[in-house]
Amino acid sequence: MKLHNYFRSSTSFRARIALNLKGLDYDYVSYHLRHGEQRSEKYLSVNPQGLVPALELDDGKVIAQSMAILEYLDEAFPEPALLPKDPFDRALVRSLCYAIACDIHPINNLRVLKYLGDPLGHDAEEVATWFRHWVTVEFDSLEPRLAETSGKYCVGDTVTMADICLVPQVINNTRFEVDMSRYPTINRIFDTCMALDAFDKAKPGNQPDAE
Amino acid sequence: MKLHNYFRSSTSFRARIALNLKGLDYDYVSYHLRHGEQRSEKYLSVNPQGLVPALELDDGKVIAQSMAILEYLDEAFPEPALLPKDPFDRALVRSLCYAIACDIHPINNLRVLKYLGDPLGHDAEEVATWFRHWVTVEFDSLEPRLAETSGKYCVGDTVTMADICLVPQVINNTRFEVDMSRYPTINRIFDTCMALDAFDKAKPGNQPDAE
Repeated sequence: MKLHNYFRSSTSFRARIALNLKGLDYDYVSYHLRHGEQRSEKYLSVNPQGLVPALELDDGKVIAQSMAILEYLDEAFPEPALLPKDPFDRALVRSLCYAIACDIHPINNLRVLKYLGDPLGHDAEEVATWFRHWVTVEFDSLEPRLAETSGKYCVGDTVTMADICLVPQVINNTRFEVDMSRYPTINRIFDTCMALDAFDKAKPGNQPDAE
Repeated sequence: MKLHNYFRSSTSFRARIALNLKGLDYDYVSYHLRHGEQRSEKYLSVNPQGLVPALELDDGKVIAQSMAILEYLDEAFPEPALLPKDPFDRALVRSLCYAIACDIHPINNLRVLKYLGDPLGHDAEEVATWFRHWVTVEFDSLEPRLAETSGKYCVGDTVTMADICLVPQVINNTRFEVDMSRYPTINRIFDTCMALDAFDKAKPGNQPDAE
C-alpha cells in the first residue's frame, strides 16, 4: 500500500496511526501542502478531491478521506479492532471521532485558514483566534464526556478510532497555543497514546518530509 | 426512538432519511437553532455537544452526530443496507459522504456563518460567497466522480449513505443560490432520490416545525 500524505496534516497522521496499529507496511508519498502539491495534476489523478491523505491499495484502487480509510482498515484487517463490538459502543466512539473530524478539523483546515487571510483579509492573530475558538467550543464539551467514557483511552482501556482522531488534534493545537490546561482528561489520554509506538512513529516530527 | 432535531438542519435531514429508509418510527423533538435552543440546559442534558441531531434510543441512550447515527442504524437494523458489502465499495461510499459531511457542511454550518458575521464583521453577501465557495470547490470534484460511480444513485443502483449526505446538501445550496447548472449528474441523482417517499417525507418543508 501507498499512503499519499503530508507530515503535518492531522488527517494523514490519523491514517498513519491506524496503519501502524494494524501492523501494516506502506510506502510514504509526500505532497507539500503549503506549496499546493495536493492540487498538482499528478495527485489529482490519484485523488480528484485534491486533499490528503489517500490510501492506494496494492491493486491500484484509491481510498480518499481519512475516516473512510480508518473504517476500511478496520474492516479489511480486523485485528486489533479500532471499534468496539456493540453497536451502541461503536456509535459512541464514532460520535467522539466526528466531534473532531467534522466539527473541529475541517473548519480549522489549512485551506480555510488561508481563505480567512485571502480574500477575507484577516491577520494572523484573527486566524489564530478563529482556530482556538472552534477547538475550545468542542474540547469544552469533549473533556467532561471523556471524563465519563475513558479508561486509559477515550473509551475504556482499548485504543479506538476516537484516540486516533484526538491525538492529532491535540498536536495541531500546539501550533496555535490553545490553552490545554483546561483539559486534564484529554491531556492524560494524549500522553497514554503517545507512549505507544504506533502513535509515536506516526507523529509529524518522525516523518521523512518533516521540516 | 426520539430524534432531537430541527427541520432545516441538513444533518437532521440525513438522520430522518435513514430512519425512513429503515422503516423505523420515531418521535420528532424540535429545537429552534436560530433561537439557540440547542444550547439550552434541557438539550445539553441530552447531548452535551449542543448540536442536532441526536437519536435517543428506547433505553434512553443517546447517539450524537448524524454520521454515527447512520452507521448505527445500518448496524442495528441491517435491512435495507445503506452501505455495500465489499470493503472497498463501502470505503468509496464513505469517502463520498465525508467529502460533504466533513469538507462542506461543517464549514458552512449556521454557527460558522454566524461567526463570520459577528465577531468577524462580514456582511450577508460575503457570507453567501463563503458558502458558495466551499460547495463549489467540492461539487466540482464530486460531479465527475459521481458521473463514474453512479447508476440511478451515487454508487450504482442502490441508495446508500452517499445519497443521504448529498440530497440535504443540495437543498441547503438553494438557500445561497449555488449555480447548480454545472452539476447534471448531481441534479439527476437528487431528482431520483426525491422521488422516493423516504426522502420526500424527510425534507425540511414536510416537518412539523417547518416555517
